[in-house]
Amino acid sequence: MFQVDLNSDLGESFGRYTIGMDERIIPLISSANVACGFHASDPVVMMKTIQNAKAAGIQIGAHPGFPDLMGFGRRNMNVSLEEAKAYTLYQISALGGMCQAQGLKLQHVKPHGAMYNMAAKDYELSKAICEAVKEYDPELVVMGLSGSETIRAAKDCGLKVAMEVFADRGYEEDGSLVNRSKEGAFIRDEEEAITRVIRMVKEGKVTAVTGKDIELKADSVCVHGDGEKALLFVEKIRKALEEEGIAIRPLI
Amino acid sequence: MFQVDLNSDLGESFGRYTIGMDERIIPLISSANVACGFHASDPVVMMKTIQNAKAAGIQIGAHPGFPDLMGFGRRNMNVSLEEAKAYTLYQISALGGMCQAQGLKLQHVKPHGAMYNMAAKDYELSKAICEAVKEYDPELVVMGLSGSETIRAAKDCGLKVAMEVFADRGYEEDGSLVNRSKEGAFIRDEEEAITRVIRMVKEGKVTAVTGKDIELKADSVCVHGDGEKALLFVEKIRKALEEEGIAIRPLI
Amino acid sequence: MFQVDLNSDLGESFGRYTIGMDERIIPLISSANVACGFHASDPVVMMKTIQNAKAAGIQIGAHPGFPDLMGFGRRNMNVSLEEAKAYTLYQISALGGMCQAQGLKLQHVKPHGAMYNMAAKDYELSKAICEAVKEYDPELVVMGLSGSETIRAAKDCGLKVAMEVFADRGYEEDGSLVNRSKEGAFIRDEEEAITRVIRMVKEGKVTAVTGKDIELKADSVCVHGDGEKALLFVEKIRKALEEEGIAIRPLI
Amino acid sequence: MFQVDLNSDLGESFGRYTIGMDERIIPLISSANVACGFHASDPVVMMKTIQNAKAAGIQIGAHPGFPDLMGFGRRNMNVSLEEAKAYTLYQISALGGMCQAQGLKLQHVKPHGAMYNMAAKDYELSKAICEAVKEYDPELVVMGLSGSETIRAAKDCGLKVAMEVFADRGYEEDGSLVNRSKEGAFIRDEEEAITRVIRMVKEGKVTAVTGKDIELKADSVCVHGDGEKALLFVEKIRKALEEEGIAIRPLI
Repeated sequence: MFQVDLNSDLGESFGRYTIGMDERIIPLISSANVACGFHASDPVVMMKTIQNAKAAGIQIGAHPGFPDLMGFGRRNMNVSLEEAKAYTLYQISALGGMCQAQGLKLQHVKPHGAMYNMAAKDYELSKAICEAVKEYDPELVVMGLSGSETIRAAKDCGLKVAMEVFADRGYEEDGSLVNRSKEGAFIRDEEEAITRVIRMVKEGKVTAVTGKDIELKADSVCVHGDGEKALLFVEKIRKALEEEGIAIRPLI
Repeated sequence: MFQVDLNSDLGESFGRYTIGMDERIIPLISSANVACGFHASDPVVMMKTIQNAKAAGIQIGAHPGFPDLMGFGRRNMNVSLEEAKAYTLYQISALGGMCQAQGLKLQHVKPHGAMYNMAAKDYELSKAICEAVKEYDPELVVMGLSGSETIRAAKDCGLKVAMEVFADRGYEEDGSLVNRSKEGAFIRDEEEAITRVIRMVKEGKVTAVTGKDIELKADSVCVHGDGEKALLFVEKIRKALEEEGIAIRPLI
Repeated sequence: MFQVDLNSDLGESFGRYTIGMDERIIPLISSANVACGFHASDPVVMMKTIQNAKAAGIQIGAHPGFPDLMGFGRRNMNVSLEEAKAYTLYQISALGGMCQAQGLKLQHVKPHGAMYNMAAKDYELSKAICEAVKEYDPELVVMGLSGSETIRAAKDCGLKVAMEVFADRGYEEDGSLVNRSKEGAFIRDEEEAITRVIRMVKEGKVTAVTGKDIELKADSVCVHGDGEKALLFVEKIRKALEEEGIAIRPLI
Repeated sequence: MFQVDLNSDLGESFGRYTIGMDERIIPLISSANVACGFHASDPVVMMKTIQNAKAAGIQIGAHPGFPDLMGFGRRNMNVSLEEAKAYTLYQISALGGMCQAQGLKLQHVKPHGAMYNMAAKDYELSKAICEAVKEYDPELVVMGLSGSETIRAAKDCGLKVAMEVFADRGYEEDGSLVNRSKEGAFIRDEEEAITRVIRMVKEGKVTAVTGKDIELKADSVCVHGDGEKALLFVEKIRKALEEEGIAIRPLI
């Protein structure tokens, strides 16, 4: 029996600013990556997001990012390893304690944006992040790009991992994502995207941008809830997975 | 046998900015109120402060404040009760998780600056803060101005309390601090300050600015480590307490 | 011949966060109050907002607020007079220089949110704000609540003033706005709101919540562009003003 | 007749946090680079720094940095060119307007920390910064690392430039600074440092870390005021320059 997790970034609103359609996407996913106040979110938003996720029965993960609200955590910042570890621990702790106040436990940690992308290629940065995870709670799952340095570092730390794949992105032969500026970066055909995801889940394989098949494990698929079209796609992918006998389940 | 806690605000440095002589004051106190990143501190500073407190064997409390780094949390802000609760929970969680990563448990929560002063006079604000404390961990001690609304709200929430007194401040007949702009706000004579503290600990009494004796319980005395003179005073007060047979002990 | 200015708050987006429908409201107003990065906006947003306002030929004013992005500058903060002056000068300067880079000059300054409301009742705070305006450019117009302390302070500083009125708000007999929590705070009938505005412009009078007519000068009417309904109302009020022979013109 | 400017970074305090001994270094320099609120400083600090510089009769320059207070602007951030331009223009404007309020005009612009270092090697980033300078005021001087891309971009924009040299740093043959982690990065001998500066000013030459003489124009020497030793060195270098007949003068 096959199964896969559907994850989405949530709780990214801030003060009077709203981003995302959290209440629409929550019923469609199994795991929520909740922003922790550095690149997005604030304590009131976090509290409400946890309550909404709890009511829907989905799992919650911390989504730590760089301290760059103005850039939404999407700009590379060369923080030191000590800073990366402390920033991660602070953010996991903030969200984890707020979950604890609701009688919940965090399921996973997935770095956000530039931190995710930098860590995917940087073993030392990934290690600093994973050390923070481990010191907070060694039972937490580290979610990272399938086949990335983040996954390698998490395993070396003795942590559980969840390999994440993207339905709408092309892959290089080494398993990294095709750079957004290059041809083949995006899979624009929805049917093709869905077919690829199903193959990743069932066979552990995907066709790279070069045409060559590569191995790629899919524990969780990243989906988006920031528009009608995105929401419709999540519904489509859910339906297709179910028709293929793939259960949508959280990581634990 | 008498005993009292000595507490001080720590971990208020930020990035390249340094405030306080934390390493000098730590050996002289029994409880540290550690800033949590809103009015002061950052994750790296918090991590180091926890390590230093742990090495010295003193207890750690969360010191949440308003989100006002530019004003050091000393400016009144009319946040809503929902915001006050969420901000407090976020900050306790952040510090609490970082302590947990070091194998430590938080001892207490003491609001900072304007949040402390506003809460002392505002039962509803105190209640919002105390609900956050209780939801995070009902075993935590709430430290507040002796006789304040904060203490009353904490008791109503079923939380443990620590009555805080100030050696260098004058009191009104109702137990509130004499406003800083008024005569009698400060006790400038060190011997007098120490005598007052000893009486508060032993007799539960202090002479108000009007000359009338009032009742005032002293579980913890607030001391400062931001200069040579302040440090010398802490040493003096320690010596005097010991000579009076008053043990200096944390709250739990 | 009668005339009045229509002003609206613009440039309140921040990073990836969007607020307001600036491009829809710009063609309908004569003056834009542009946020300056403290309570809302960022340099990229400010630059684009200036360009859009310039293209439409409307006037630009600085809209300084408290350093409270999380609260959108809507929470009272007890900043010192020195801080109020410096914060205002900084924000006017930032926007003013960006206008200068586009060959434009600022027309006016209108404090935002809590700063606007606090200043309306606090002569000293208004004075601090007006001193900043005057030191930056004594030709700038100060926009404030009609009949408020802000207008009084601006006149005392020798600055030009623009009396602002609200179409959708009730007034007390002293010319202050009826508190949002009280009955009569809002004029919900659009026709009534428009009739009141026309009377304010033509007769300088409005009926207070008590039923008594009071004098109230209307140099500028505040309108909103944060929704379809708001935009439709602005179109209605424009039409009504034109039909009454009232020209819609900026302040200078 | 030879002359050179002595510049130092000032106004880096923030709220209750103090950095630097501004009042001690001001009498020793001819130009102050004043932080503008992104990587350091706040409006109150900026206002006071301008007043102190004005009282001492030294020139003021804007010292814009990345929006990274927690990292003091010393961490590389990959902002877009549009962001770099807007951030620079905002910061120059903020400081420039505050100077204007004191009857002063900005003399120069010198990027701070990571922005300075990144721009030194990145022509496009330098160009974005220089466009902001030019749009604000084409008479402003751009101060950058002698021989850097910043200087090249400023010249291409038709702006005046000031070549900056460092007394205490080693140079590579291409005129860039020896990386801080490499041998020869620092000139620790004070006499040698002073001799090198004098030669740079008089001959336009310095010995690179490889032993080879390279050409290096010195319009301004960067000095520090963050400690007794640093201040003493500035006094020494002043004395040496004067003895060599080199006048210490601002850039304009």
